[in-house]
Amino acid sequence: MKKLINAPEDVLKDALAGVAAAHPDLRVDHVNRIIYRGTPKADGKVALISGGGSGHEPLHGGFVGTGMLDAACAGEVFTSPTPDQMQEATKVVDRGAGVLHIVKNYTGDVMNFEMAAELANAESGIEVATVVTDDDVAVQDSTWTAGRRGVGVTVLLEKIVGAAAEEGRDLAAVTALAHKVNDSGRSMGMALTSCTVPAAGKPTFDLPDDMMEMGVGIHGEPGRKRVPLAPAAEIAEQLVEPILADFDAKGPAIVMLNGMGGSPLIELYLMYGEVAKLLEKAGVQVARTLVGNYITSLDMAGCSVTVLKADDELLKLWDAPVSTAGLRWGL
Amino acid sequence: MKKLINAPEDVLKDALAGVAAAHPDLRVDHVNRIIYRGTPKADGKVALISGGGSGHEPLHGGFVGTGMLDAACAGEVFTSPTPDQMQEATKVVDRGAGVLHIVKNYTGDVMNFEMAAELANAESGIEVATVVTDDDVAVQDSTWTAGRRGVGVTVLLEKIVGAAAEEGRDLAAVTALAHKVNDSGRSMGMALTSCTVPAAGKPTFDLPDDMMEMGVGIHGEPGRKRVPLAPAAEIAEQLVEPILADFDAKGPAIVMLNGMGGSPLIELYLMYGEVAKLLEKAGVQVARTLVGNYITSLDMAGCSVTVLKADDELLKLWDAPVSTAGLRWGL
Repeated sequence: MKKLINAPEDVLKDALAGVAAAHPDLRVDHVNRIIYRGTPKADGKVALISGGGSGHEPLHGGFVGTGMLDAACAGEVFTSPTPDQMQEATKVVDRGAGVLHIVKNYTGDVMNFEMAAELANAESGIEVATVVTDDDVAVQDSTWTAGRRGVGVTVLLEKIVGAAAEEGRDLAAVTALAHKVNDSGRSMGMALTSCTVPAAGKPTFDLPDDMMEMGVGIHGEPGRKRVPLAPAAEIAEQLVEPILADFDAKGPAIVMLNGMGGSPLIELYLMYGEVAKLLEKAGVQVARTLVGNYITSLDMAGCSVTVLKADDELLKLWDAPVSTAGLRWGL
Repeated sequence: MKKLINAPEDVLKDALAGVAAAHPDLRVDHVNRIIYRGTPKADGKVALISGGGSGHEPLHGGFVGTGMLDAACAGEVFTSPTPDQMQEATKVVDRGAGVLHIVKNYTGDVMNFEMAAELANAESGIEVATVVTDDDVAVQDSTWTAGRRGVGVTVLLEKIVGAAAEEGRDLAAVTALAHKVNDSGRSMGMALTSCTVPAAGKPTFDLPDDMMEMGVGIHGEPGRKRVPLAPAAEIAEQLVEPILADFDAKGPAIVMLNGMGGSPLIELYLMYGEVAKLLEKAGVQVARTLVGNYITSLDMAGCSVTVLKADDELLKLWDAPVSTAGLRWGL
């Protein structure tokens, strides 16, 4: 295992120290492993928290800041944070208008966020709403989930719903919007190589030199099928077709070509070019684009495509100013 | 070789198609392989161009836009663009106030930019100035250079000098500033793995599982020494010490912890934490930070550190609004 780390058991602690050092505008609670905005939002506004296992950076800590999240709870690599962490974050960020939990659909995360919501409500009277993202069309159930996995749409949802919360919409409106965004998006991913979890010290799965995994999950969990390595144009087809088969994507959309962590930007742009051709042919009007590493899987080589149908409301919220480590414009 | 590409000989063409599709606010000349701003800057302002071999994305195409470059010339992977490309870009971006060429110190780039500057001046009467970046403290001469290699400072220079050009400073002032920035910065990089050039189809160099290359170049060219794999804290020391030994870095600085392309963000933040501790101990006051993939080496795993001493003038220009694919704030 070749990684830029100290002891495998210290990866999260050390990475959070780096985040704190790099971003003085954030506040890192090193005990509870929570990343907060340095300056909390105004009283009376809905707060947003998310979190999950580490290893998907910049998700979620990289999306804490004005216009996106109020806090992110970091679990160990590929391990859900605890209800205690989420409860603490919920209490700290609440500005009296309630808190939305943004949860990727993995069994541990869903269970722990649910428990945290109940505790925060029972002990502190905080109104908590939840949206569970489940946009991955690859598999219906998986080793880590009941139902579909939550992947790329989570990034876009945090941006769009974050803008709505910043505007001052109430918890019911923010929550309804979050469900709308999740319902409007689909994703599909693939891997050229496995990731290596530091504590395991070896690749999560074996993938021969001439094969790739289509529909892979962001923890390296199995996808739909293992197929021979193919040119980018064919990979794009294998990613886009299941998305288009799953919903009517015609019309304006926000499209993300996301890298899994080990694939360089030149390849991600190349893949985006192939994906854009297919989407155009299918009547998808790409209104906004993200190309880069946004929801990763440690050092896995590969990529995913997310298509989010976006009406004028979503596009306006997308364009609103944002200032986080991972997404920034207008501020 | 596992890459998200079509034919190896089409990588650059296909990647530029993706850039064009992803960024409608840029204009891509596919024949000459030049990325331009979609809307040229105002008449009477100095224009900035850069360029070099591809494989270092987002450098340079990802830094074209308001507040940074006016154009970037893309060569084949790890191959200098031609004088024709640079001459064409120089002619197109000139707004009557002259053009600054920002050139990383590699023999091919320096020669070709020099020729382009002469041709643009002789044939079109354009005043061209040049800054050659040579911030890499690893080696004095190398397989690719006479003198030191140009690496991370190039990114910071394009931002800072781009802001000065946007302000309307004249060519002499912009050029003097560019030299000041280059003189104020030092970098040092390392690799855990080799990169693989698509046309070669195999790793550029062999690096045993228990070894790393300290002082590696951004084309995988040899560094100072090959040493046993070490914890992040020791790697940070081996990167920071040669920088601090090379100049007096005390005082305010802009620091970049740059990924080589194949290392995930969680490792880059972890490394930044280690680097920040060492810099603080040495009296460097980190005023601004960049952590991420900014000048890469295809799929190489590894990182580099850049320390740029920054007075109030440089910090003010750093903070000025910028809108590019790779760096964006305030716009």
